[in-house]
Amino acid sequence: MDVDIGNALASVATPGVSRTALERLDERVGSAHERIQTGRAEREHGYAALNLPDETDPDEIRAATTALGDVETLITVGIGGSALGAATITDALRSRDTGVETYFLDNVDPAWIRATLESLSLESAAINVVSRSGTTAETLANFLVVREAFEAAGVDWTTRTLVTTGESGPLAALAREHGLPAVSIPDGVPGRFSALSAVGLVAAAICGHDLEAILEGAAAEADTLAGSLFECPAYAYGAVAYALDSRGATVNAMMPYTESLETYAEWYAQLWAESLGKDGLGQTPVRALGVTDQHSQLQLYRAGPRNTLVTFVKPREIPAYPIPMAGIDELAHLEGASLGGLLEAEFEATEASLAAAGRPNVRIELERVDAFELGGLLYGMEAACVLAGELYGVDAFTQPAVEWAKRATRGQLGAEESAEAAAIEEKTTLRIER
Amino acid sequence: MDVDIGNALASVATPGVSRTALERLDERVGSAHERIQTGRAEREHGYAALNLPDETDPDEIRAATTALGDVETLITVGIGGSALGAATITDALRSRDTGVETYFLDNVDPAWIRATLESLSLESAAINVVSRSGTTAETLANFLVVREAFEAAGVDWTTRTLVTTGESGPLAALAREHGLPAVSIPDGVPGRFSALSAVGLVAAAICGHDLEAILEGAAAEADTLAGSLFECPAYAYGAVAYALDSRGATVNAMMPYTESLETYAEWYAQLWAESLGKDGLGQTPVRALGVTDQHSQLQLYRAGPRNTLVTFVKPREIPAYPIPMAGIDELAHLEGASLGGLLEAEFEATEASLAAAGRPNVRIELERVDAFELGGLLYGMEAACVLAGELYGVDAFTQPAVEWAKRATRGQLGAEESAEAAAIEEKTTLRIER
Repeated sequence: MDVDIGNALASVATPGVSRTALERLDERVGSAHERIQTGRAEREHGYAALNLPDETDPDEIRAATTALGDVETLITVGIGGSALGAATITDALRSRDTGVETYFLDNVDPAWIRATLESLSLESAAINVVSRSGTTAETLANFLVVREAFEAAGVDWTTRTLVTTGESGPLAALAREHGLPAVSIPDGVPGRFSALSAVGLVAAAICGHDLEAILEGAAAEADTLAGSLFECPAYAYGAVAYALDSRGATVNAMMPYTESLETYAEWYAQLWAESLGKDGLGQTPVRALGVTDQHSQLQLYRAGPRNTLVTFVKPREIPAYPIPMAGIDELAHLEGASLGGLLEAEFEATEASLAAAGRPNVRIELERVDAFELGGLLYGMEAACVLAGELYGVDAFTQPAVEWAKRATRGQLGAEESAEAAAIEEKTTLRIER
Repeated sequence: MDVDIGNALASVATPGVSRTALERLDERVGSAHERIQTGRAEREHGYAALNLPDETDPDEIRAATTALGDVETLITVGIGGSALGAATITDALRSRDTGVETYFLDNVDPAWIRATLESLSLESAAINVVSRSGTTAETLANFLVVREAFEAAGVDWTTRTLVTTGESGPLAALAREHGLPAVSIPDGVPGRFSALSAVGLVAAAICGHDLEAILEGAAAEADTLAGSLFECPAYAYGAVAYALDSRGATVNAMMPYTESLETYAEWYAQLWAESLGKDGLGQTPVRALGVTDQHSQLQLYRAGPRNTLVTFVKPREIPAYPIPMAGIDELAHLEGASLGGLLEAEFEATEASLAAAGRPNVRIELERVDAFELGGLLYGMEAACVLAGELYGVDAFTQPAVEWAKRATRGQLGAEESAEAAAIEEKTTLRIER
């Protein structure tokens, strides 16, 4: 990926970062880069994720998936980082007709689960259940439900289930017991940084996508990591996002100009929110989509509080698709144009309209949305996030604040007495009813 | 809808609003309510939208749709408020099997448009093209492309197209020329406030949903509008969101605990962003989804900056769907539980975990997600937004900041010389390349 931070400069935007401030910040980027390289070399928790392009073995992943035989429908059961990376990749590349429909069961909404299962022919379906610990409540509950649905449909789930999990735990035990194909989640790789491991790639393999190209794209991005933000697109993005947050851009709207990256914006939201949102710090990610959200959120970003950085992701190659002539006077400007040309013009216009209003924005450019470029984008944003974690001085690889609710949930289900469950009973209420 | 603002009180959360501050604010709510009622009585632009439950005629909408004959696939062509209300309603109610697949072409991404059209059998499809002016570039471009696809498939589009537009303009002229069924968009109703008009209801009618129940639910909510936030759930929500924004909660994360309301959160984002984001004011809407985003965004909302109000939307009735017994020790707490019970426990736990960390949150409760309750929710949030507009002192019904980009787009397409298009050429760049 290439990054253009021109519209984030103080000469354009408020908040904005001056060139001298960027140069001072670059000294910290140099130190952070050393820290990151040490972490990678020593395979420390989290930093190890930045080694995945060299360490993930596509053959191993493909070998596990071939045990499933022909798959027309893939049901991935996972939540958070166990689903979003895989969904991002298959959604981004789905324009290649792979003959495989993908579903991600990442919620425990009973009506939705039931409707989804009822709509599928399970005969040609396979399950990929993903949880490092093998104990994630939502994932295991959904897996048990899906397994039962296979049984009810007369399909032997043990021939149609692949397990993606850590070395031990209930799912690993289940795989051993039933001889299920299994891939392991590498040590030191938090869920939201696992897109370039088996966690993100099993679904892509089953869809027949080019895993090597994804990893090569990521490796090419890894090769750009350097001690200066002026030499490394990923660090340029991470450093500018951090600098703008410090200057008041507490919101970061991720706005790809292609439907294929809509899920990527969700993946990014988890990466950015869960990694950096701690100790009272962090920048709030917002998902947007060009051109659609020009008709929704743009008014706020251009004229609301000066608290938002808009991050565009823009493929350079966009197919044309001519717009048929209409002979309508009011649409004269569309004569001879194409959908692609219109998209392009609207992107340029939106970017310029924010700059003209002094609103900071950054452009991330890809050649096109393909396996290689996608690998680069995912790796680049992970590296940007790790760098930002260093600059904020937070541990980007933990998520301690979600533990309270997990204990409270177990308490609510009656598994254990807990202060957390008791707190639920003491809720302050002020109800206004219809 | 019922609203519980207990966890937004200063006794629970920081930022929070004290009871005395709420009582002072309630005087302003009283004046705002009078202004709103005057606007409704005089059918002023925008305020008129709050009269829709009494003025929308379901028979008229249904009559127009019957001219299309049998429809198995409905393609709605519109963008922003011309698509989101209709998509919200059909997505929320899709658990009723209606036999109609709905697609919303709300982007000009050429690859996506092509793939979508190629995947459909157009023989049994119908088009609803929605644009008040009849000149919205994205909508007209897509309509011309879809019309051509129908012709290429040998389907007479003139027998399969319904037009939703204003009294004049190219679409109205087209409808007259070809004798197309048409419904008109009522005067004084901005796109993002049009869900309860034909704009939002044509798709629901074609799907066979109960338009009367939607409008009755909205009317019941309208009946609660009163001069005090303590008597009106919608005003309680709008006032508390405003008060919290003033106190630092500049972000509002809308987090329904049901997949059926995922699109509703997008609709809400447009409503809130485009109505209130002006003059440097406004609160940034973020879309979230329970329980999924507990594994994504929750870390940030509980431990990041104290700048976020989390708004839960929670149906009281959730189906059970038993989780089959697994005999796994680590999952003992799930034995005998159901997906619905798990969802419920996780909701309570998440709400309490935010309160325990002193993070403001509001609970909006529906009986269930059905036509009546949905009508109430949409009306309630519109009324909340109008009230918030009064409290901010902004015009909630315009979107002036998006005009710049529209002129720039036309300039880019060569339709006219413009200063905006010239500004695009002068972009400041600072590129970091791979």
